[in-house]
Amino acid sequence: MKVDGIHTRSIWVESDGASVGIIDQTLLPHRYETTVLAGVDDAARAISTMQVRGAPLIGATAAYGMCLALRAEASDDALERAYRQLLATRPTAINLRWALDEMVAAVRNRPRHERVAAAYRRAAEICDEDVAINQAIGRHGLTLIERIAAGKQPGEPVNVLTHCNAGWLATVDVGTATAAIYTAHDKGVPVHVWVDETRPRNQGASLTAWELGHHGVAHTVIPDNTGGHLMQHGRVDLAIVGTDRVTAQGDVCNKIGTYLKALAAADNGVPFYVALPSPTIDFGVIDGRDIPIEQRAADEVTSMTGRTADGRIETVRIVPDGSAVANYGFDVTPARLVTGLITERGVIEASRAALKHAFPERAAAAQRPAAAE
Amino acid sequence: MKVDGIHTRSIWVESDGASVGIIDQTLLPHRYETTVLAGVDDAARAISTMQVRGAPLIGATAAYGMCLALRAEASDDALERAYRQLLATRPTAINLRWALDEMVAAVRNRPRHERVAAAYRRAAEICDEDVAINQAIGRHGLTLIERIAAGKQPGEPVNVLTHCNAGWLATVDVGTATAAIYTAHDKGVPVHVWVDETRPRNQGASLTAWELGHHGVAHTVIPDNTGGHLMQHGRVDLAIVGTDRVTAQGDVCNKIGTYLKALAAADNGVPFYVALPSPTIDFGVIDGRDIPIEQRAADEVTSMTGRTADGRIETVRIVPDGSAVANYGFDVTPARLVTGLITERGVIEASRAALKHAFPERAAAAQRPAAAE
Repeated sequence: MKVDGIHTRSIWVESDGASVGIIDQTLLPHRYETTVLAGVDDAARAISTMQVRGAPLIGATAAYGMCLALRAEASDDALERAYRQLLATRPTAINLRWALDEMVAAVRNRPRHERVAAAYRRAAEICDEDVAINQAIGRHGLTLIERIAAGKQPGEPVNVLTHCNAGWLATVDVGTATAAIYTAHDKGVPVHVWVDETRPRNQGASLTAWELGHHGVAHTVIPDNTGGHLMQHGRVDLAIVGTDRVTAQGDVCNKIGTYLKALAAADNGVPFYVALPSPTIDFGVIDGRDIPIEQRAADEVTSMTGRTADGRIETVRIVPDGSAVANYGFDVTPARLVTGLITERGVIEASRAALKHAFPERAAAAQRPAAAE
Repeated sequence: MKVDGIHTRSIWVESDGASVGIIDQTLLPHRYETTVLAGVDDAARAISTMQVRGAPLIGATAAYGMCLALRAEASDDALERAYRQLLATRPTAINLRWALDEMVAAVRNRPRHERVAAAYRRAAEICDEDVAINQAIGRHGLTLIERIAAGKQPGEPVNVLTHCNAGWLATVDVGTATAAIYTAHDKGVPVHVWVDETRPRNQGASLTAWELGHHGVAHTVIPDNTGGHLMQHGRVDLAIVGTDRVTAQGDVCNKIGTYLKALAAADNGVPFYVALPSPTIDFGVIDGRDIPIEQRAADEVTSMTGRTADGRIETVRIVPDGSAVANYGFDVTPARLVTGLITERGVIEASRAALKHAFPERAAAAQRPAAAE
């Protein structure tokens, strides 16, 4: 989507045809800086320091990390080393292993002199496939927004609430939760987005607000406490969030706090949608309560980073010394609270039957015992 | 309650018998400093700059502000000026007008030379009455906690979730939502408190955590997004919050985000209690949806204040320039989500009949047309 009026992806090959450009997302929203990844170490560091984040973008960065590794040395040993190095950067990211496996499959059986070119081709495909999936999600989500817009006065915006960042910065472009929003906006349907700030890491205030602002989408940042009140007063037409994992029965694991917004949506008759690319469906898990929830570092809760009046980036402590904190990364929204799943194959019910019907090949694959590695 | 091991109230008369001491709550949790109010201007400033906050403490500070004004000049004119000056500091605070009216009633018909002493007596009574009410709330709330504790293993704590600060810092002592917690703790019943940080002003992380820590109560600060997840996993035994206003039918207006926690409590069978002194009941309003919700300043959302690594207090901006923000101060939790109201007359149902039965004199007073001023 657009940054300073220029169409931009979150990752790209530089003009030398080899090194890779990314946006340093740790500096957003206060500084927009791009960084060049010249080797696999740079790629690994970009992932582990969260200069890039979001499952699809992590996968894409890892794919290009493999390209950069092979460029330095195209041997089987180098391939293996790069695989291990990149996999270790964010061990729980589901797309990371998938992307690395794809890259290995693309080059393994080729002679060394063909490997680099084959790797860059496959990495580019991985990126383009992500964009195509998100564009399909956007088309399906658009119909939901257009249906609501049809009941409004001309010019009156459709109010969408979102949580965290499942925007283009988390993917290669377009985003998942934001796909319908950008598609509607680009088509001239007036939309306004309530952006949950999303404590403790503030991805909503830092990233979603930044990307919506640069693309020209009207939006308002709100504390995470606010969405229920807005829904009670008819100020939210629908909620769209992303997800880290959807179970076989449609339970949704997403950023902590999603469940609270889903409860408020149900209590006020507000449709609550989850946008996702189908690889996010985990047919191997039925009940969302079986998903282990990662506890993250305390300092995400005890401190806050922002820009001082004189322009410095500063971190301040906001919790008393000696107070314990807890920092659960995700929660699980049960399928009963989800109005629908916006996927690349259409908007489907959050149920076992609907998921199996829409993605039979993935459901079947989950039935088979995994091949030994 | 205790600060550095010493029993402390949130407001007191200094050893000169005239000037008034307060804790500068704007510096908490990073600096504990007390301030002396020598005149009515100091008292007005302490309220308007939120060195003191919380309806009961605002009322107590205004009462002593009247004392300080009368000490300088005990005329009717001075009384009237002080009344207007103090009333203007926080025009929506319900206890502020009540305390000022009490002070006027206590001195109006007395000769000037008796007014100062009468004023200090009434101000002290207002403070002591607040403490007595909160102690009664604590005794009634204790029975709820003891009932849960009885079902636990010995030493296993009762987990209470609270939102915002309805602690002793918001009152003269003991607090409302914290009353049962302190009473249980002081009696040796193990309690652990989940403290919602309470964005955007962070009263949970800044004040509730600080006061619980100083009194020695086990607690954990959590982002506001976390409570639902904890309730899903059986980690919360009951929720207790304060309130700014309870309607005649038991709807609860409290800090923004309270409604979301009440929804999660209902969804998970967790008891959800609201602690309040009876003056907080507004028998003149039936439906909580009729309470106008104050929009507060944008900078509470766009920025965050805390302590830097080298000990300075610094404010940082956390929202992109150009992004709009919304900052609703309160939300309304419908009575159907409230398990009970913990009042100084016992734990009662959040319903019109129960409120009228428990506080017949207040319900009757609301039926009479207000006297012309």
